[in-house]
Amino acid sequence: MASPLPAVNTYSLSNYSYLTTKHPKIHKHTSHADPFDRMKLNYMKDGMRTSVEGILVVYERNHPHLLLLRQIENTSYKLPGGRLKPGENEIEGLKRKLTSKLGSNSPDQVPEWKIGERVATWWRPNFEDVMYPYCPPHITKPKECKMIYMVHLSEKECFEVPKNIKLVAVPMFELYDNIQNYGAVLSSIPQQLSRFQFRMIIKS
Amino acid sequence: MASPLPAVNTYSLSNYSYLTTKHPKIHKHTSHADPFDRMKLNYMKDGMRTSVEGILVVYERNHPHLLLLRQIENTSYKLPGGRLKPGENEIEGLKRKLTSKLGSNSPDQVPEWKIGERVATWWRPNFEDVMYPYCPPHITKPKECKMIYMVHLSEKECFEVPKNIKLVAVPMFELYDNIQNYGAVLSSIPQQLSRFQFRMIIKS
Repeated sequence: MASPLPAVNTYSLSNYSYLTTKHPKIHKHTSHADPFDRMKLNYMKDGMRTSVEGILVVYERNHPHLLLLRQIENTSYKLPGGRLKPGENEIEGLKRKLTSKLGSNSPDQVPEWKIGERVATWWRPNFEDVMYPYCPPHITKPKECKMIYMVHLSEKECFEVPKNIKLVAVPMFELYDNIQNYGAVLSSIPQQLSRFQFRMIIKS
Repeated sequence: MASPLPAVNTYSLSNYSYLTTKHPKIHKHTSHADPFDRMKLNYMKDGMRTSVEGILVVYERNHPHLLLLRQIENTSYKLPGGRLKPGENEIEGLKRKLTSKLGSNSPDQVPEWKIGERVATWWRPNFEDVMYPYCPPHITKPKECKMIYMVHLSEKECFEVPKNIKLVAVPMFELYDNIQNYGAVLSSIPQQLSRFQFRMIIKS
């Protein structure tokens, strides 16, 4: 028998809020304006980059929405997450990154992150934008492996982000098949989540 | 801690063969040439259609390939599977459908199907081609729910198909992002499978 569908409890978008009180992160290595230059330098030092990102789902009008970070200056959307340290465990690294992207400055108010199942794995064969959901044949030295995980949110949460960032809830129907606005990774998340059973928890 | 990645043992394409010795299936209700006419009639009788399909993976040149059925007269590709009977269990129904599409005519040579995890769920809101990986908001009566499962193949297998059908192995890199040739459901399977760990089993 197949195992039952993995279930995800989701709560209303109105249960979540965010403050823009965190200091914006000062980018390291600002001398390397091209992000792929920095990736190349790090690759020579540490080998393939491994990065982790989290999928946080809420509901609004009976439909699941994804929480995404949007830079105010450009309109690019990102899942919260980032690069692992060399040798760092994926789950611990994702918790660290979620705290640095969404947690409060005061360590006693950091959410207790519950990391669920792996949802997708993407591979970057070259120092370029394009990634694939498999390591392409004949690529023996991929430059990045990005692992995306389900994050099970608590019923209520107050996040904190820097003031140049907005935390937005994007409906599945807006992401789906919308590679132009969200890119290949985000626009295929609805298909990857279609195997989950989203339980919308309504509190009286 | 998150659970370990689900693993799928895959074997070389050369371990599998197929015969075209089975009688082609005579379509029921041939008076209804439009498939959506038939779907409407069945909907009035039985309610929402539920269908199941199986993902069968083999490897060739170190890259995972999907086994698909291709009609000879047109060039449309299909996952093996089909419609459940009213009230039929998904897993049992998928085994029955795999046997009818790929099994031998002699009942003692039917493969022992091992059905794994749900990979995706697609919804058809109307009597039309388009499906979504979620039930769209405001759709209270979807017309079809299609569930796609991983099928764990045995090391060797000889399938049997009707003579107007070919069984073909399509590489992930050919399916990926190729909605024009394979449609929305098949072209997004590489993303859905990216969370699996494919172990290519090489026999000496």
